[in-house]
Amino acid sequence: MNPYQAPLKDMQFLLENVFDATNTWQNMPAMAEMVDMDTAVAILDEASKISRDLIQPINRNGDEQEVRHIDGKVITPDGFKETYQQFSEGGWVGLCGEPDFGGMGMPKMLGVLVDEMNYSACNSFTLYSSLTAGAALCINAHATEELKEKYLPNLYSGQWSGAMDMTEPQAGSDLRNIRTKAEPQEDGSYLISGSKIFITGGDHDLTENVIHLVLAKLPNSSGISLFLVPKINVNDDGSLGDSNGVTVGSIEHKMGLKASATCVMNYDNAKGFLVGRVDRGLVCMFTMMNYERLAIGIQGLGSAQGAYQMAADYAKERVQGVAAGGSATGATADPIIVHGDVRRMLLTIKSITDAGRALSVFTGKQLDLAKHSEGDVKAKATKYVGLLTPVSKAFLTDRGLDATIMAQQVFGGHGYIRETGIEQFVRDTRIAQIYEGTNGIQAIDFLGRKVTGDNVATLTSFVAEINQELAGFEHVSDADKKAISLRFDNLLTIANHINEHKLTQPALINASAVDFLDAFGFILYGYYSLLMAERSQGHEDQSFAQQKQFVAKFYMDKVLPKADFHIAQVSQGDDAIMAMPADLF
Amino acid sequence: MNPYQAPLKDMQFLLENVFDATNTWQNMPAMAEMVDMDTAVAILDEASKISRDLIQPINRNGDEQEVRHIDGKVITPDGFKETYQQFSEGGWVGLCGEPDFGGMGMPKMLGVLVDEMNYSACNSFTLYSSLTAGAALCINAHATEELKEKYLPNLYSGQWSGAMDMTEPQAGSDLRNIRTKAEPQEDGSYLISGSKIFITGGDHDLTENVIHLVLAKLPNSSGISLFLVPKINVNDDGSLGDSNGVTVGSIEHKMGLKASATCVMNYDNAKGFLVGRVDRGLVCMFTMMNYERLAIGIQGLGSAQGAYQMAADYAKERVQGVAAGGSATGATADPIIVHGDVRRMLLTIKSITDAGRALSVFTGKQLDLAKHSEGDVKAKATKYVGLLTPVSKAFLTDRGLDATIMAQQVFGGHGYIRETGIEQFVRDTRIAQIYEGTNGIQAIDFLGRKVTGDNVATLTSFVAEINQELAGFEHVSDADKKAISLRFDNLLTIANHINEHKLTQPALINASAVDFLDAFGFILYGYYSLLMAERSQGHEDQSFAQQKQFVAKFYMDKVLPKADFHIAQVSQGDDAIMAMPADLF
Repeated sequence: MNPYQAPLKDMQFLLENVFDATNTWQNMPAMAEMVDMDTAVAILDEASKISRDLIQPINRNGDEQEVRHIDGKVITPDGFKETYQQFSEGGWVGLCGEPDFGGMGMPKMLGVLVDEMNYSACNSFTLYSSLTAGAALCINAHATEELKEKYLPNLYSGQWSGAMDMTEPQAGSDLRNIRTKAEPQEDGSYLISGSKIFITGGDHDLTENVIHLVLAKLPNSSGISLFLVPKINVNDDGSLGDSNGVTVGSIEHKMGLKASATCVMNYDNAKGFLVGRVDRGLVCMFTMMNYERLAIGIQGLGSAQGAYQMAADYAKERVQGVAAGGSATGATADPIIVHGDVRRMLLTIKSITDAGRALSVFTGKQLDLAKHSEGDVKAKATKYVGLLTPVSKAFLTDRGLDATIMAQQVFGGHGYIRETGIEQFVRDTRIAQIYEGTNGIQAIDFLGRKVTGDNVATLTSFVAEINQELAGFEHVSDADKKAISLRFDNLLTIANHINEHKLTQPALINASAVDFLDAFGFILYGYYSLLMAERSQGHEDQSFAQQKQFVAKFYMDKVLPKADFHIAQVSQGDDAIMAMPADLF
Repeated sequence: MNPYQAPLKDMQFLLENVFDATNTWQNMPAMAEMVDMDTAVAILDEASKISRDLIQPINRNGDEQEVRHIDGKVITPDGFKETYQQFSEGGWVGLCGEPDFGGMGMPKMLGVLVDEMNYSACNSFTLYSSLTAGAALCINAHATEELKEKYLPNLYSGQWSGAMDMTEPQAGSDLRNIRTKAEPQEDGSYLISGSKIFITGGDHDLTENVIHLVLAKLPNSSGISLFLVPKINVNDDGSLGDSNGVTVGSIEHKMGLKASATCVMNYDNAKGFLVGRVDRGLVCMFTMMNYERLAIGIQGLGSAQGAYQMAADYAKERVQGVAAGGSATGATADPIIVHGDVRRMLLTIKSITDAGRALSVFTGKQLDLAKHSEGDVKAKATKYVGLLTPVSKAFLTDRGLDATIMAQQVFGGHGYIRETGIEQFVRDTRIAQIYEGTNGIQAIDFLGRKVTGDNVATLTSFVAEINQELAGFEHVSDADKKAISLRFDNLLTIANHINEHKLTQPALINASAVDFLDAFGFILYGYYSLLMAERSQGHEDQSFAQQKQFVAKFYMDKVLPKADFHIAQVSQGDDAIMAMPADLF
């Protein structure tokens, strides 16, 4: 099996030809001095080596050896600690971090591509750094200067790691019911007590300290506040002090992601520091959640890409059966890539993965514009970030599972064997549809808040912008343009209908949300497929341009019609879903 | 978590009210004396206790402990041996076996329901008995009387088990390339030498002997013959003799099905006996394969049903969030079954599982009619068995994976934890889409042989019969009837189109097959949903009848439109699939 090789040509193409990174960066003062296309290409090139030579080699053993909980300590599999150290020393944890506190300040538009590589190489490993970057983002956005100065440099450097502590046994999707308590102290700090479950990277041996962001309630308040709680107290001079009443109760044994520690965390009068305002913890946490939601979407995307490469390589090597109509080479058996059904699977994976990467980079670009621009540009990008975050999380991870399952199918019986490695992608990526808010929750956020929350205004302008872009394409047929714009029109009509009935039919949004998001996603991917076909014209590598044409044609013919199924679903209301009494289930 | 409870009411309903088992059995002399509805109900009742109290309790530990290969021996997890012994003593291995050699001679129409229960309870355990029953079926159909007398009684009694040895490293989907050799001996036996991989139940400690059915080639022949090769030689008096050059090279470490031994089997001049005619081994093996293909379909069905029960129970117990529009009970949090998206998932699973059970029983009925009837009835049933076998295998297992993944999603984060048990269903059932011929191979068999092989004649008469039945339904709307018959008409048009172009467009069948099978399956399930709604009218349990109405309405509104997506796919030919050169993948 060939090692993972990052799709650098595709990545550079998206930055340079599709989403106009050069101009985007030049127009943002904070970026203009940090990055240009040469820097970006050099970073991608270096990252591709890291993912291939450093991270992927620990992936399979990580799955076999698993993370262990021994004598109260969490031990990661062989090689994880050394790899994390090298990874940190390269500055990769702080790639998109705040330069004032030691981050490299690179644009998210570039960071998403590095994230994808790392997830393709090893899901479990990449979560540790991804959560650390997310925690740093939240601290940078909401904490006091004092906390930032004390904690951010060591998070960006990878010396410490971060974790997000939200869930409790009785409070998962519904956080109102958390019971963890925060007692205010005279020095302005708080004492945190309670238990959290499902804490990814809650403890491990990769770093000397873990910085937890913990949701808890103040006495006599039903509001939820956010606290920074270090595993080991940090002295005023930045050195490590005594331990802080933060212990690991146990770790979970999971379907996959076995090298990532999923911890029960116990807080026993642990010292914590308020982040943001009292009772506004969920708002602060959502800064991190939004970041993580995109990152988890990219987990799905990275898994799909890694699985695609394995399956495509296998299909070109594995010899079985003769092509329909006879072997082109006269052989008694051909590589299975000659078989239509194998090609159908590979092209499905390829087309949704290419389009998914476009979604990821576009969303990353909106994050950059929202942060580093001003005025109308900033306002629009902020709205698009809100609109696209739940879509990126849910649609990239749902398609990630589809892709890994199809890739596994290409392997036949060998796909079920652990040693082959492809089934690990299925198990590892499955969680991405569940955590950081299940994909059902994402869809309800999308339809309930982002689409109907402003009476369909943002979605309407987003679609209008796409239609305008589409109209200008010179190498795309009118039929293909219409296939996208008519479906978007349908979807807007449905969105307006739901918006008008959301108060009189309160169950409608919850019952329609997943299909609505899927319909939007499949149409949007169609647009991205055409966009890439259009922009690939004149690419210096002609076969690359050809590939983008073939893939777009496949997507438009064979995948886009899925949108119609989901549109049909949403059009039918919620009767069939809500009518049956619970006891008949 | 409640223990698995077989859906006895649904099962009895299918036999009694939907597929008219009483008359069917009375009209077959071989069955009339063996079974009536009272006997069938008693058997189902007893089987439900076995699945719940005997088999399910070993399922989770089987997954954790796994089968082991120690000092050349294959050791099953704790409890498997004792359970297999009790299961065998109950006569369950030989439930549908030939009465002349110790089988119970029960109809397959009943046997499929028992199989489903056992797969719901434990995938790994049930494979051992299922493969044994399949091997016995093949021996009974093709072996000499001497071999039958010597081997069948101990297979039916469960004292020995059976295995099917086909795959070799270079010969998976394409068996022409097998290299295992059979040297004819003077006494009429053969010496078998070679290696086989992926042999389910190839060796284990459940029984004292394993009877292998091995595909091998005679010297100087490219034809493939079938041989019965016991692990331990059997003396003329039926006692066990010396070992027979059959050894286990290794066992596979798999994604799931961890308590089922998947073996590399080595044959070193092992003594074997020809089954069927020389060079006609594949034909004989297909007797077993067809039986196994239905059984593996039922693995998918059983997994779906088991997962549904877990998810429905969880959704009624887990409290999280308030119903849209406010809690009906005024509670601050409701069971998650109030949420539209959770109901959507549960109803999807329920509707495809109910319809899947109908397909399973109907196919079982055709197997009975093909075996025990005469004349036109036999001929028609034989054709229907051919038509429906690949559909049962592929569609039941594809929907099985969909169902288990959706059920896992209902559990949120808990669904990813091994202890919960739901993720085991996903891992265990995933293989069912791959082995016994991948679902791609099934689809090509369906479209290439079963549908276009007789120029669409069988499919046309099958659809005509359904349309006639539909026309007579008194409690189904005309719109629903049309929704089925129009889609079937579409599909027949496409089938005829493909049939006309199959020679000039040789890639068309391979490239269209999976979508064609899916389109057929989703329409057929719609028919079964309506059939069950129709026949449930007047059921003594009114709430059961109501449930069937609700489920049918959901299926027609929310699932049937999937057929349109697949019809759209098949209508578009193979251009988008075949055009891209292999090196662009």
